Amino acid sequence: MRPTMKDVASAAGVALKTVSRVVNGEPGVHPATAERVRAAIDRLGYSRNESARGLRRGMTATIGLVIEDVADPFYAGLSRAVEDVVIAHGCLLLSGSSGEEPGREREVVETFCARRVDGLIVVPAGDDHAYLRGELETGTPVVFADRPPGSGIDVDTVLADNAGGAERAVRHLLAHGHHRIAFLGDDPAIYTAAERLAGYRRALGGLFDPRLVAMRTPALDDVRADLGRMLALDEPPTALFTGNGRLTVTALRALEGRRLALVGFDDFELADLLRPGVSVVAQDPAWMGRVAAELLFRRLRGDGGPPEHVELPVRLIPRGSGELPTP
Amino acid sequence: MRPTMKDVASAAGVALKTVSRVVNGEPGVHPATAERVRAAIDRLGYSRNESARGLRRGMTATIGLVIEDVADPFYAGLSRAVEDVVIAHGCLLLSGSSGEEPGREREVVETFCARRVDGLIVVPAGDDHAYLRGELETGTPVVFADRPPGSGIDVDTVLADNAGGAERAVRHLLAHGHHRIAFLGDDPAIYTAAERLAGYRRALGGLFDPRLVAMRTPALDDVRADLGRMLALDEPPTALFTGNGRLTVTALRALEGRRLALVGFDDFELADLLRPGVSVVAQDPAWMGRVAAELLFRRLRGDGGPPEHVELPVRLIPRGSGELPTP
Repeated sequence: MRPTMKDVASAAGVALKTVSRVVNGEPGVHPATAERVRAAIDRLGYSRNESARGLRRGMTATIGLVIEDVADPFYAGLSRAVEDVVIAHGCLLLSGSSGEEPGREREVVETFCARRVDGLIVVPAGDDHAYLRGELETGTPVVFADRPPGSGIDVDTVLADNAGGAERAVRHLLAHGHHRIAFLGDDPAIYTAAERLAGYRRALGGLFDPRLVAMRTPALDDVRADLGRMLALDEPPTALFTGNGRLTVTALRALEGRRLALVGFDDFELADLLRPGVSVVAQDPAWMGRVAAELLFRRLRGDGGPPEHVELPVRLIPRGSGELPTP
Repeated sequence: MRPTMKDVASAAGVALKTVSRVVNGEPGVHPATAERVRAAIDRLGYSRNESARGLRRGMTATIGLVIEDVADPFYAGLSRAVEDVVIAHGCLLLSGSSGEEPGREREVVETFCARRVDGLIVVPAGDDHAYLRGELETGTPVVFADRPPGSGIDVDTVLADNAGGAERAVRHLLAHGHHRIAFLGDDPAIYTAAERLAGYRRALGGLFDPRLVAMRTPALDDVRADLGRMLALDEPPTALFTGNGRLTVTALRALEGRRLALVGFDDFELADLLRPGVSVVAQDPAWMGRVAAELLFRRLRGDGGPPEHVELPVRLIPRGSGELPTP
């Protein structure tokens, strides 16, 4: 006999309505309670198809996800979290990468739409999403994650506090006595890179020096050249703020043991095992993926409220590299 | 004006037939030439839809990929490579994770088939693939990567030389004077874990001691307990062979600075930045993904030859940890 929603409720020790809320992605359930319900669903093997039946008629029980690059650990973590939520709702996830190319983003989105996905989660590569208007008008919910859509498209967004996190990282270095703090950022055309630059500038105020800023797609040779140029200045940097995980790792490799204080944006595996440990301001890609997916399922269940704009906080994790004193 | 196949040929300095071979995934093109053709295709923006037209009528120009967990860097790298090949052939990739659950693997595969994917690349979680028979009989090509299908299913496979790589790793430690070499492996129900155990045993011969073997799903507490138990033996291990990237990282964390010689299976980012650098036997997940995808496209273009079984070599990368002498 297949377990029912009632069995889940009694196993989790909650009301039937609470299980229904969790299954249907509705708000008003404490996260810890929702976790308990989900654990009971898994334990009992409560049928995913059963819960998928909660979808409106004509739905395909598939969700499309467009990310930048699945080989980047940030997006891999986000994808995995989205997939877990999608599967818990009895649906299947289709995913594709844009490779940071707006044309490919559009191609993947349009193919998903042609296959009638019920909803979309998009990490945009481009900043023109007029092509989505038709799909939005037919009622397909779309959530943008990590980066907002281009102007004129008002949909749900789940973004990290990029500027605030960068400001926090730089203030941390300032508090440890550094005044010459360099910034290695990604291509400034990328929303998160531009936001992090803004936070860096805000924290530095009058100490800002454009010669200590280099922003481009991370590549070892380029990072090595940028650092070499900065370290040859009369007043070289004593500290470094790196704008994403890829840049942090590339900078560590380029530094070849030179001890600059360093705080990176984004946590990464093994940051704690390096010597010194690498201090970071950490986003939580799995959290971002979960929130985006839950928001999408609320829309699929009929929540027609105004677009929500969620900003997720980041946290500073001191591990040694960001606490090095000035020479 | 859209670039034609002829434009690609003259840009790459090759014959039209060669471009056609590359676009259609046919054999007989030198890898370096194929790379040049692909570069010209990218540079000119040769239409992917144009090349997708090469598919037989009735095809959907979509490929399904089932992996274990996209948050694992090995599978993320494999996915990315598969996606690159799929897109270069004018097709779209749908992907899903099994989470190492045979039921979920089957669910994802069946959903892909219901959506009429033209072909499938599967990293299996289970060892019973009888459910695929119907699909195979209708002519849908399937390539298994990383792990073979269960018995009775004879399809193309792309596997690494797991046993040979493990043997090589252990021989390397033996050559550095170690006789007590422990093995931390994943769940022995997983094909690759069992193969690596076999290679470990083969290299050790009479030195094999079951008390130095622990095999289960990687988790920090378990690895810590297993290592603690082994290190408390009268003749404790002086060296460690870890059975995959996840285990290597977990073991490094559990060792907390105790210096055991170590060789890990699978390379991982930052292995070179740790002190000592971590010696590994490295697979190339991108290579595996590329080979599997190219093989699939050959089948899609009508190659009806007997199933191919490709075994990819692994290579030893000494970085310091595997060359530590005995105490």
